[in-house]
Formats: sequence, C-alpha cells, structure tokens
Amino acid sequence: MKKYLGIDVGGGSIRGTIIDKEGNSYFDFQIPTNPNFSNKEFLDSIYTVVKHCLAAVPADAIGIGTPGPIDIDTGIIISSANLKNLNNVELVAFVKETFHLPVYFNNDANCASLGEYYFGEGQKANSLVVFTLGTGLGCGLVMRGKVFNGYKGNGMEAGHITVVKDGALCGCGQRGCVEAYFSTNGLLGRYFDLTNKKLENAKEFFELVSQNDKNANQILELGISVFAEGIRNVIHLVNPDKIVFVGGLTASYDLFGKSLEEKVNQIIFPVLASYVKFAVGKSVAGSFGAATLAFQHFEP
Amino acid sequence: MKKYLGIDVGGGSIRGTIIDKEGNSYFDFQIPTNPNFSNKEFLDSIYTVVKHCLAAVPADAIGIGTPGPIDIDTGIIISSANLKNLNNVELVAFVKETFHLPVYFNNDANCASLGEYYFGEGQKANSLVVFTLGTGLGCGLVMRGKVFNGYKGNGMEAGHITVVKDGALCGCGQRGCVEAYFSTNGLLGRYFDLTNKKLENAKEFFELVSQNDKNANQILELGISVFAEGIRNVIHLVNPDKIVFVGGLTASYDLFGKSLEEKVNQIIFPVLASYVKFAVGKSVAGSFGAATLAFQHFEP
Repeated sequence: MKKYLGIDVGGGSIRGTIIDKEGNSYFDFQIPTNPNFSNKEFLDSIYTVVKHCLAAVPADAIGIGTPGPIDIDTGIIISSANLKNLNNVELVAFVKETFHLPVYFNNDANCASLGEYYFGEGQKANSLVVFTLGTGLGCGLVMRGKVFNGYKGNGMEAGHITVVKDGALCGCGQRGCVEAYFSTNGLLGRYFDLTNKKLENAKEFFELVSQNDKNANQILELGISVFAEGIRNVIHLVNPDKIVFVGGLTASYDLFGKSLEEKVNQIIFPVLASYVKFAVGKSVAGSFGAATLAFQHFEP
Repeated sequence: MKKYLGIDVGGGSIRGTIIDKEGNSYFDFQIPTNPNFSNKEFLDSIYTVVKHCLAAVPADAIGIGTPGPIDIDTGIIISSANLKNLNNVELVAFVKETFHLPVYFNNDANCASLGEYYFGEGQKANSLVVFTLGTGLGCGLVMRGKVFNGYKGNGMEAGHITVVKDGALCGCGQRGCVEAYFSTNGLLGRYFDLTNKKLENAKEFFELVSQNDKNANQILELGISVFAEGIRNVIHLVNPDKIVFVGGLTASYDLFGKSLEEKVNQIIFPVLASYVKFAVGKSVAGSFGAATLAFQHFEP
C-alpha cells in the first residue's frame, strides 16, 4: 500500500506523520517552531522533519499544511500571523527540489478539516466546518467531501472575522477578530490585558480556570461569548450540519464546550440550531489531513 | 419563447416581473407590503400580484424569492425579521394549487444574486457575493453559476452576522448584527437612538446626509464601518472575486460606496484585496432573479 507523508505547520510545532489511505500511522515526529523564524530557518526546520520522516519510512508523496495567507497555485506562504517574519516562502518548490517527490499544499486548517472528514468526527457530514484551536484559530470547510479552497487556499479564515468592532488587537494587525479572544494567543493576551501577568501557555491558563481563578474565568467567559458569535457568523453564512473542534485547546473542552455550544444554539436561527451538531475531533488531524491532500491525488 | 413570472417579496413591496430567458421584460407590477401582515393577508397580496401579472401576460412557470428563514424543501416561509407576524406560511403549496403552474422558491437574496449573475454586474464572476440593501440586509453567493442554497435555502444570511458584540438590537432579536447598522431599518433605528427623531425612509436619511447633517453623517459613518467589517467577514470566509450591491439604498451609493470600498480594502488580507472587485447592480435584480429560479428548470 502507498504511503504518504503529511506535514502540519502550527504556531507551536512542525509535525510529520506517515500514513496510508486507511489512516494507519507508520511514523510520527515533531519539532517546535519559533515565532521569529526567518524564511531560511523555517525551511531548515521543514527539511529536518521531512528528512527524518522519510529516513524512517519511505513515502510516495508529501502533503503540507501551513498557516495562511498562502498561495496554493504557486506553493508560497505569503505571510503568517503567528510566524511573523515569514515572507513569500517558496515552500513547495523547496520540498519538491530537495526530496524529488510530488508535493501538495494547502492551508493548515483546510488540511485539518480533510483529516476530520476522512478519519475523524466529520465522517459522512454533508457540510463540515472544522475549527482548529491552537496558537491561532483556523477554520476549514468540507462540502460533500471536497475541501473549500477559496482563492489560492485562503478559504474560511474564520479566526480573522470581526466580532468585537474596535476590540482587542489581533496578530493579523486588525482589531476584534475571533482569534484575538479564543486561541492560545487570544486567551493569554486578554488575560495579560486584565492582570498584567504573562502566562506561558494555554495549559497554565486552563489550570487557573480549573482552580476557579476569577480573572481566568472572566477571560474564558469573554472568549466563549466572542467565539460563539464567530461560530454564529460561520453558521449563518455556510449552514454546516457538523462542527468539529480540533487542536490543543480541545484538551480543556470540558471547561468551555458545553457553555459554548449552548450559547451558539441560543443566538442562531432555530432552523439552523436544530440542524447543526458539535463534536471534538481527534488529536492528529492536522498531519493526517495534510497527508490526505497527497493521497487524494493517487487513490480514488 | 417561454415566459417566467418572478415574484420578489421585500420588506417594502411585493413585485412581479415576467421575463424570458434572455432577460426581456414583458410586464412589471408591484404592491406595498405591510410589516404587520398575517399569513392570510400576505398570501392575499401574493395572490393579487400573481393574478394581475398572469392576466396581463401568461407565463409557463413561477419563481418566488422571499425573506428567510425559509424551507425550500417544503416551500414554507418559517418566519421573517421584517414581516414579524408571518409564521410557517405554506407559500409554494398555495401558489401551485391556485394557479396550476410549476413554482420554484428560494431566499430573496439568493434570487437577487442569480439575477445579477445572469443579467447584471455579476456576469462571469467565479465566486459572486451579492448584498441586498433594503429594509433589511440580505446576501447571496453564486459559485461557478450555481447559487449556494445552504440548508433549506438559508445560505449566506450575512445581515445576521455579529460585528458589534452586545451592540444595537436587530430585528432578528439578537444584538450587533450588520443589518442593525446598515439597512433602512438599521440606519433609521440608529438615527433614532441618537436623536430621538423618527425618519420615514432611507431617502429622508440620505437627504440629511446630503445636507451635511451632523447626526445623519455620524450614523452613516458608523453604518459604513460596521458593514465594512461584515464584508470583511464574508470575504475572509468565502473569498469572492466580485461583490455586487443591489437594492434601494444603492440609489445613494455615491454617499457611501467609495468610503465603504476603501475601508474594506484596508481591513482584509492584501491577497484578497487585490482579488475582489466591487460594483453596483441593476435595480430589477430581485424579481428577475426569482424568475431565473424557474427558467433554470426549463432551459439548459
């Protein structure tokens, strides 16, 4: 059976997983990303992950998912809100020329969505929306089995829709985006605004929530209410029957999921509230999804 | 050549137009709507318009566009933000049984979008978004010539996406929707909040703007800035190459269009700003679009 290497570039790590079309995993490896990566440092890290994976298990093709905005036509990362120094990275050309394999490329959240559609909680959904809750907040749409690319792979940038006009500053440079309230950067940023205390990561934040810390609770409540409005916006525009949450923050879904789902159902049109269902996805969706980008081209 | 009756139900009027597939118009008629219409009064008005049109020019099929939420599967208007007393109106069954013609049904904004795609400013667009600026704010998406229905015809309810969290009360019962700031109801409502003065219609509002009335200018500026964020949300989610504005408020496009387009281009990802183009549509798009619902089923 053919094997496919999926590479998932997140704000926190670059992860490579080698799978077959049935979703069997043969090798899995990751290294941390650095928010200050130059183009060269970024490509060096990509090289390290691909090299290490292919040395362990040879693969027939490579799929890569990265943060946007990207250009899937030319295989370039134009820029990235969470890897600020990247600038027109010629990613696909580099990997193709270095490893002499077919390379397929898309938005990381689009890959995660395909992953959930093929192997996760999104199977059989007619119109599947996946939110990736990590350093940033990504989103993808799979309609009747096809990922919605939008223009050059920029489809469904739901992290960067405005819910709080003139609100908190987002990594993208604009104000009031959903990502500025519900993502690791958003929750920690708003917690810092309130307390002037810098937390290291989402785990630390959610530990405070578990300990009933008043400030952390307040920021989580704010984040839930903003994210609920953002989900409302997505539902009112594209009418999904299934919404799946993936990414690091879902480890704490028991601390926000019920409240989030209830809030969404209260503020959307009843006809859509009776239609849409929510679920938490599987944890390896990103790199699996990136691999599906590749195997879609090889296996019908 | 076959002829098709298109019926467009707006917050202000019910309009019937009889056209052929080339967009030639044979008859056009409208009567005002009443925001307090009961189901029966509404159906009586529909009867009047259809009867009057068909008596003038016989048609082969009827297409109807109405405000949502609707159920295109069962042909029912579930409810309407601007015709508040409507409740599960069995519209398609009524028109079919009364006039013995094939009847096709969709969201009014979806019809307007099809109208612009076939006969207006949206021709040849790859991914066309149409905003209907009238009593409320509607929106439709035509991708590669196909209207995006969403679930039961509720696709792209962009008037009811949240931009100003906890903002002004919208006709839908929620707060901070785009429609609550940029539509006839939204502009007049916000003007009333500011001045306690009740204006009759959008024309009166824009006359004040033309006269450089400070309060009207302030409300228009607010409306533009909220609508721009709403357009940002739509662009970041579905990546249209063309956006067309239709409906009554476009008569005053010279008072807000340039400012709106500039604001949108400032706040969206540059890659999308270089892709999307704006235009003002044609004025009869609603009823033409409703007619295209019908002729799509008869002529390839």
